[in-house]
Amino acid sequence: MSFVRLVRLATPLLLGSAALVSAAHAAGGPPSKGEMAVEYRKSLYEVLAWNFGPMGAMAQGKAPYNAAEFSRRADRVAALAPMLTEAFPPESQAVKDTKLKADAWSNRADFDAKLQDLIDRSAALAIVAKGGDFEKSKAAFFDTANACKACHEKYKVKD
Amino acid sequence: MSFVRLVRLATPLLLGSAALVSAAHAAGGPPSKGEMAVEYRKSLYEVLAWNFGPMGAMAQGKAPYNAAEFSRRADRVAALAPMLTEAFPPESQAVKDTKLKADAWSNRADFDAKLQDLIDRSAALAIVAKGGDFEKSKAAFFDTANACKACHEKYKVKD
Repeated sequence: MSFVRLVRLATPLLLGSAALVSAAHAAGGPPSKGEMAVEYRKSLYEVLAWNFGPMGAMAQGKAPYNAAEFSRRADRVAALAPMLTEAFPPESQAVKDTKLKADAWSNRADFDAKLQDLIDRSAALAIVAKGGDFEKSKAAFFDTANACKACHEKYKVKD
Repeated sequence: MSFVRLVRLATPLLLGSAALVSAAHAAGGPPSKGEMAVEYRKSLYEVLAWNFGPMGAMAQGKAPYNAAEFSRRADRVAALAPMLTEAFPPESQAVKDTKLKADAWSNRADFDAKLQDLIDRSAALAIVAKGGDFEKSKAAFFDTANACKACHEKYKVKD
């Protein structure tokens, strides 16, 4: 594949998604680096929630426990959580269309510590989930869910 | 953590994201399963593109090759690509706000084969990228990019 063809390929891949295009339209131009990071951030939380949800249903007894399914979702959350570390770059501070509170920027060290806590607990959850023990998996899930909650309560605007 | 508190936690996690809320508002109610799958799908492509882009820049010589960075991105793409297998459930066929062509549904076996090709090639890319050889990594990247392109050309509405 030639470089020219790859550029043709890469451009829609990077800029052609609906969310980025709508962000660009809203601003009357191509999205800024900060806007792209916010779109990435929102997308990442969507993908996290998609995989976190079925584990939550099992942990709450709303769906039957399926050890393989639980473990697969836990692996995904553990792979996704570290991706959040690049979802809050300084350029994104100026973007208005976000539920992130300004406090996250003034308490950045605490915010980053909470994010690291999520990463650590989701890594632990993935390991526990492989063992296939429901009670242990449930406890590790709640640990992870509490890490989500600790950050949301302090740094996310309430829905 | 009590079940009641977890339910309080899980609800905004699953339904509180900006994209899902806007989909719900557009439809005048909560999003359908199909709409949720389309939002998940778009989000997943965003996260894929975010990680695919820097590899593309390196492969095209627009950014200096950084073997560790390239490999980290390749690992992520290899983890993300299989998640697409649940992003096109039958319920999503009725959703209009998508660039997926109707042909994807009438040629589902071919569509699925193209998706599997992306999964296989991105898995191979992740392995090659670990070796830290630029020329081999570049070739494996183009193989993966061609798998994206083959599906987009046939089943994605042009931007």
